[in-house]
Amino acid sequence: MRAGCFCSLLFYVWLTPLLLLLHRIKASGLKLRFCTNETQATRENFVKKLQGMGFDISVAEVTAPAPAACRILKERSLRPHLLVHNDLVPEFAEIDKANPNCVVIGDAAENFTYANLNEAFRVLIGMEKPVLISLGRGRYYKETDGLKLDVGAYMKALEYACDVQAEVVGKPAEKFFESALAEMGVPAQQAIMIGDDIVNDVGGAQRCGMRAVQVRTGKYRPCDENHPHVKPDAYVNNLAEAVDVILQQL
Amino acid sequence: MRAGCFCSLLFYVWLTPLLLLLHRIKASGLKLRFCTNETQATRENFVKKLQGMGFDISVAEVTAPAPAACRILKERSLRPHLLVHNDLVPEFAEIDKANPNCVVIGDAAENFTYANLNEAFRVLIGMEKPVLISLGRGRYYKETDGLKLDVGAYMKALEYACDVQAEVVGKPAEKFFESALAEMGVPAQQAIMIGDDIVNDVGGAQRCGMRAVQVRTGKYRPCDENHPHVKPDAYVNNLAEAVDVILQQL
Repeated sequence: MRAGCFCSLLFYVWLTPLLLLLHRIKASGLKLRFCTNETQATRENFVKKLQGMGFDISVAEVTAPAPAACRILKERSLRPHLLVHNDLVPEFAEIDKANPNCVVIGDAAENFTYANLNEAFRVLIGMEKPVLISLGRGRYYKETDGLKLDVGAYMKALEYACDVQAEVVGKPAEKFFESALAEMGVPAQQAIMIGDDIVNDVGGAQRCGMRAVQVRTGKYRPCDENHPHVKPDAYVNNLAEAVDVILQQL
Repeated sequence: MRAGCFCSLLFYVWLTPLLLLLHRIKASGLKLRFCTNETQATRENFVKKLQGMGFDISVAEVTAPAPAACRILKERSLRPHLLVHNDLVPEFAEIDKANPNCVVIGDAAENFTYANLNEAFRVLIGMEKPVLISLGRGRYYKETDGLKLDVGAYMKALEYACDVQAEVVGKPAEKFFESALAEMGVPAQQAIMIGDDIVNDVGGAQRCGMRAVQVRTGKYRPCDENHPHVKPDAYVNNLAEAVDVILQQL
């Protein structure tokens, strides 16, 4: 399970310490938004799961890749071949999928089979101009049973095989952060992203003009601090420390 | 089944029309060598299969990636975690594989499962300096039941996830062509590569100073003729045409 949250902040964290911290942020009057690359569940189910854990969160507070992708598909009359997690398929219920003219790839997890990857590849390579839409470009993530390859790795495989560049919907795409900011009504200069992913959270937010703090938890690795291109505005050891620092400065 | 052959030539072709053509080439006195990225079988089994189809070919006439990789592993005391086809595993029988300090990836086909890819990724990301050795960098190939992703696509996935660059053994690596030329005792300027892969066959050979002809069969696609970087010295519609043209010029 991966989650992120915004305020004039934006968090991307493991859930355990979040419960009380969210109350503190909301009580301070700061605006808050969850910004997630979660593509293993519909936004509704993602929110239900968090609500079931006691979080005060609504669907309207979450920015996620699949609804953003559906808007693009409708705008451009694209009919997707889906390579996504079974639990995400309902997000595309209203989209015409007959005779596909693009491929949409998400974190399909167990659906990343040899057969499914070959099928998605054949659909793409059969197009005059292959269109590949990727729900994020994450390299890997951590689950209870260890690190796992994320959608970005499989996106790269298809990009290379078909000699195309994917259109990325989700972090770190600028449009994704911009739409989250617009939904909050907060300019980038007044927003802070807090996340554990040096490229997707920190780098993506900074390119939009936001400040960004990296949390030394979750998928953080010490070598992130020597990243050749991305330097966070600050590091914190955990989310509680981030909230402390921010609230002290109000 | 994929195969390639050399002479002062080098072919990469589907096998059907090869039988008589090989006799014509050998009878002409030209030197001939098979140069293959085949990693779904040991070199011995690959040759046995061809011999069973009537081909006059010996193991010593074949240049293939796995034996080349074994030489590298021994030279550098590398202990591989293997992500390869089951039928290729015997090539690595004499290599120490305990406590791996590198990953070797080949065209693992059905072994390209979600679990196996995650496992190879975890081995790599756990190293201080990840070492990834790839038996080729092919994008895709054609089998009787359609196009399939080749090792290069999965190599790219791991490269991206671990932020490393793979060391490629096999076409189009210059060293691979150079060793094939050395084994024949033919300078690059007197050798011609004939293959169906615009990048791996044609591009790789040309970078070594060889001339290269693309055959409009197998994995050839019309858009190859507009490739932004690689221009074959000539096109032929099939292997027979290539042999005709070359023998006429002797």
